[in-house]
Amino acid sequence: MTKPNLQIALDQNTLADAARIAHLAGPIVDIVEVGTILELQAGQQAISVLREMFPDKIIASDTKCADAGSTVAQNSKDAGADLMTVIDSATIATMKSAKSVLDGIQVELYSAWNWDLAEKWQQIGIEQVIYHQSRDALLAGEVWGEKDLNIVKKFISMGFKVSVTGGLNLDTIKLFKDVPVYTFIAGRAITGQDDPAAAAQAFHNGIQSFCYRGT
Amino acid sequence: MTKPNLQIALDQNTLADAARIAHLAGPIVDIVEVGTILELQAGQQAISVLREMFPDKIIASDTKCADAGSTVAQNSKDAGADLMTVIDSATIATMKSAKSVLDGIQVELYSAWNWDLAEKWQQIGIEQVIYHQSRDALLAGEVWGEKDLNIVKKFISMGFKVSVTGGLNLDTIKLFKDVPVYTFIAGRAITGQDDPAAAAQAFHNGIQSFCYRGT
Repeated sequence: MTKPNLQIALDQNTLADAARIAHLAGPIVDIVEVGTILELQAGQQAISVLREMFPDKIIASDTKCADAGSTVAQNSKDAGADLMTVIDSATIATMKSAKSVLDGIQVELYSAWNWDLAEKWQQIGIEQVIYHQSRDALLAGEVWGEKDLNIVKKFISMGFKVSVTGGLNLDTIKLFKDVPVYTFIAGRAITGQDDPAAAAQAFHNGIQSFCYRGT
Repeated sequence: MTKPNLQIALDQNTLADAARIAHLAGPIVDIVEVGTILELQAGQQAISVLREMFPDKIIASDTKCADAGSTVAQNSKDAGADLMTVIDSATIATMKSAKSVLDGIQVELYSAWNWDLAEKWQQIGIEQVIYHQSRDALLAGEVWGEKDLNIVKKFISMGFKVSVTGGLNLDTIKLFKDVPVYTFIAGRAITGQDDPAAAAQAFHNGIQSFCYRGT
């Protein structure tokens, strides 16, 4: 049994702050993500700095690309990213264009997706989706539940590698203990702690003890 | 009659290239936009550089924000942006959160919108939408036509200020000569020309001669 990956989302406002946290917690995780906020703030340099810091890790560029797929993908790739997100409301043409440049395209599920679209994504070779509770939805009081689990399970049964994110903590990941998710993405539950390395280690241990992935 | 604004979309891969073009064509336009590609490449500095170059122009930050609305809006605002885009598939909570920080929020219409949603955007005070042909859709052969005009007109009749973008040139803006659009956004039709100032001036003249806006 392969275990799910642990991905740290670096969504700091400055590259300095992100590098500080990555220096501490990065060695423990499988995937280091340049979050959208960080990328909009620090630019492509944020990707290249993290690429150089972690030559052996997977680097994710959370561009939430909506258009100009091949350009944005090429820029992410040039800076060293292995994965890049596109937004669900991007056109199939945009997704295809991004995918032609960078293989590791992940569709981020906001409010624009449906199962027919998911099939179309598969038809153009996209293998990964990211299911999440939006940060603002969580602030508005939404919580993880059965509805979310069922969606995640359906994507997995279709053959997608599913990453899960949005306000995850050591309790909420337990919800997925029987669901073979591909990656748990944690942001402030790691980056917002006094000891980001210890927080990352606790996630890692939690995943090892009760989460598995059947691929 | 007020004339539509002319907005230049700076989507270069480097801030140096964008600044060169802005230096030439910026004085002629009404709104200077830090395009998504540029912002992902050069970060927040791209906004602040253009803000300082054009203290009297409107500066637009094309973040296509999908989440963390207030943080992204605050960062855009801190750098000097007057306008910021959110993606249509963002939740209402995200849009509201962005709007609470920066008044000039524009919803960018990709594939996730419908008229019910548009009413909800209005209910939370959003006054601006951006209608466009996606760059990748244009590359895939789509063209401007009656369908687009009718959508733009309906948004205007609802009371929205509508910006129009996507492969616009001196011919395509003529389609809108009887439609009171708020802003024409031109990218490579200006930035990709040998003489960006002359290209911007030609757009400006075209707008003055046959486009009006009834607000």
